[in-house]
Amino acid sequence: MSDPIKYVLDESRIPKAWYNITADLPTPAPPVLHPGTMQPVGPDDLAPLFPISLIMQEVSTEREIEIPEPVRDIYRQWRPSPLYRARRLEKALDTPAKIYYKYEGVSPAGSHKPNTAIAQAFYNKEAGVKRIVTETGAGQWGSSLALSGALFGLQIEIFMVRVSYNQKPYRRALMESYGARCVASPSNETASGRAILAQRPDHPGSLGMAISEAVELAAQRDDTKYALGSVLNHVLLHQTVIGLEAMEQMSMAGDFPDVVVGCTGGGSNFAGLSFPYIGHALRGGQKSRIVAIEPAACPSITRGKYAYDFGDTAHLTPLTKMHTLGSTFTPPGFHAGGLRYHGMAPLVSHCAELGLIEARAYPQVECFDAGVLFARSEGIVPAPEANHAVKGAVDEALRCKQEGKSETILFSLSGHGHFDMQAYMDYFAGKLVDQPYDENELAMALAGLPSVS
Amino acid sequence: MSDPIKYVLDESRIPKAWYNITADLPTPAPPVLHPGTMQPVGPDDLAPLFPISLIMQEVSTEREIEIPEPVRDIYRQWRPSPLYRARRLEKALDTPAKIYYKYEGVSPAGSHKPNTAIAQAFYNKEAGVKRIVTETGAGQWGSSLALSGALFGLQIEIFMVRVSYNQKPYRRALMESYGARCVASPSNETASGRAILAQRPDHPGSLGMAISEAVELAAQRDDTKYALGSVLNHVLLHQTVIGLEAMEQMSMAGDFPDVVVGCTGGGSNFAGLSFPYIGHALRGGQKSRIVAIEPAACPSITRGKYAYDFGDTAHLTPLTKMHTLGSTFTPPGFHAGGLRYHGMAPLVSHCAELGLIEARAYPQVECFDAGVLFARSEGIVPAPEANHAVKGAVDEALRCKQEGKSETILFSLSGHGHFDMQAYMDYFAGKLVDQPYDENELAMALAGLPSVS
Repeated sequence: MSDPIKYVLDESRIPKAWYNITADLPTPAPPVLHPGTMQPVGPDDLAPLFPISLIMQEVSTEREIEIPEPVRDIYRQWRPSPLYRARRLEKALDTPAKIYYKYEGVSPAGSHKPNTAIAQAFYNKEAGVKRIVTETGAGQWGSSLALSGALFGLQIEIFMVRVSYNQKPYRRALMESYGARCVASPSNETASGRAILAQRPDHPGSLGMAISEAVELAAQRDDTKYALGSVLNHVLLHQTVIGLEAMEQMSMAGDFPDVVVGCTGGGSNFAGLSFPYIGHALRGGQKSRIVAIEPAACPSITRGKYAYDFGDTAHLTPLTKMHTLGSTFTPPGFHAGGLRYHGMAPLVSHCAELGLIEARAYPQVECFDAGVLFARSEGIVPAPEANHAVKGAVDEALRCKQEGKSETILFSLSGHGHFDMQAYMDYFAGKLVDQPYDENELAMALAGLPSVS
Repeated sequence: MSDPIKYVLDESRIPKAWYNITADLPTPAPPVLHPGTMQPVGPDDLAPLFPISLIMQEVSTEREIEIPEPVRDIYRQWRPSPLYRARRLEKALDTPAKIYYKYEGVSPAGSHKPNTAIAQAFYNKEAGVKRIVTETGAGQWGSSLALSGALFGLQIEIFMVRVSYNQKPYRRALMESYGARCVASPSNETASGRAILAQRPDHPGSLGMAISEAVELAAQRDDTKYALGSVLNHVLLHQTVIGLEAMEQMSMAGDFPDVVVGCTGGGSNFAGLSFPYIGHALRGGQKSRIVAIEPAACPSITRGKYAYDFGDTAHLTPLTKMHTLGSTFTPPGFHAGGLRYHGMAPLVSHCAELGLIEARAYPQVECFDAGVLFARSEGIVPAPEANHAVKGAVDEALRCKQEGKSETILFSLSGHGHFDMQAYMDYFAGKLVDQPYDENELAMALAGLPSVS
């Protein structure tokens, strides 16, 4: 029997700086626009929502941004996260490829999300903020911010998409265990929530609506700010610890990836692993193929339009140029709640436009097939989101087998599935189906995009 | 803000041998008896249930028993597990004590159980066994053996106490994700199960009954063996990797524990941390106070009798001398399913009789109080079982505060609570209550103990 091999970095090797891909891109990403003036937003426009330190990171062009020591101190609890060689999976696939995965499920919240939640809580605390408001879909992000609030003594308030609030009480209980307050969205606590409930009192909610509620509330009070778990430049920046560590660990293994694979919803997990590799190639280093895996039911890169759009439903956010399905698009039900966003991070979208990454969409059932094979081979049950990355890696390994090539594949296993066992129950009971999105709805949502010259 | 400090061992420092406390005890534990002859059982009596290698470990008096390389290879996936200094908890308690904890929740199943499950699966595979049958209460053990079965290519069949089978479908889904078969106990698949169902078709089951079913099935087929997740000498032996690693890590911290605290159900987690420390003192080394924490609703050490008893309800097992509440005792409902066994490991019981350990019983609500304080301080939500250890450590730290002593406290955080959020929901909703056991039932169960001279 061949066994997995773990590559462990000493904690002194936790990166001292995050990597900012903006410094290496051949052209800058299009500016963020104010929806009223259609002019690029300045720091002042964002100041009601974010502390100035995070706004400066959002617009920074410096290649390296120092990680504050108190953030590294907390990272130390679970970082550097392990990198594994998936020898048993390779054997199960009978592939000549070498498969490695970087495992972020070792964080106390079980996913990569604390990498940015801890950083955001730190900067807010430093700026004298008392309360952070946010939204959450499946609950990975909400529980990570709740954890961070507990560690920094910040009040955390979370608008949780109502359908998840009702279906995932255990994620809610985790947030409450960390002392956060969790509200079903749409709620009566905001004007945007009340407007939706007036039309439809039993509205199941959406991530876009929950963002509207959180943004509205944060803008009202000086001691309160807003936090987002993906999409924004500074969020992707914080996640680069994943890729920076992985590069060192792959060196320890004496290997370099031919292919880097990540699942992508808002883009932060994908960017976290891949941006350091993209930057390495842009600076003249060895080049890897970079493959983004998205769900077929919410395929923003592969089926969306690269256009200016709002980040939320109530159109309270600035306009960003991104691959979008339209802010009114509602994907059909599927289990990877973290991949249900209508847009893609502007920096990931820009990389796709520049031809720096490939994208591929998979329906969920075959992702679960791959996830269960992975669990039985490697011992870790992946989160439904991570199953998409597993599927992507498995397909690359099977291609290598067909082509007789011994390529090196690296993917990010962004979280464990311990909070998602209902999805596995449905899968084993044959109840997990691939529901396609509504083509008419997508066409309408795309037709409704704001017109920006 | 002061932060937790992690003590990480290089994976080359995973112990090369388990520690067998029998070698150091001043008197041997009383022999295991055959219930028919009342004579000590020999290897032949146990051969239908266990491979000979495990039977030899059960009766071994060697101090060190080598860990096979394939077992260490799999341990490597998550071992050495981290040891943390709980600085934020110390601060929250305003105690002069130093609190350390060894965290076993980093295993793929989320608890310490894989330490022995992997070893047992290895020895069974080596002996040509095709199938292992076992029982599980809350599901920690069942999922760990399911994981081990997947890694070694063994069929795993698990009798899960019916009330848990119905209440904890997610634990069941985890076992099935690893490819195990899970059956609600009492079941129609065994004579002992059918006998119980004939009397009461909706019987909720108990750990003792599930053991009977598993033992019965295992004894019927040559290619099938039985596995137990706690209580037995070889199980405690395998768990000593916890304490052996902790001793090295405490040395790295330049510290030695004045008090070692563990929660104890069957005894394996407690023994895993404490036996290496007890042995160290017995061999003339520095002595720690060793404190076992048990649930007030199932207090085998503090309220049970030290007597020969059966391990199961149908009386298919040999007789072992242990602290027992009687094999017919059924504890009231409480959330630490892993602490609901009527007996205590013979070796732990023997240590209690020899005055080598102290024991204390806590009702569950105050354990959850301590667990939530821990979650908000240290970022990890403990399993309900582990909350008992947290409570024990917190009380020791508060005693230090009262006495103005800066003692060093080490406890074992045996698992995370991600599968136990219903318990936290009940706790936050004020629905978690302390239901005492029935004194009459205990008296009857104790009166029914087998009479052995």
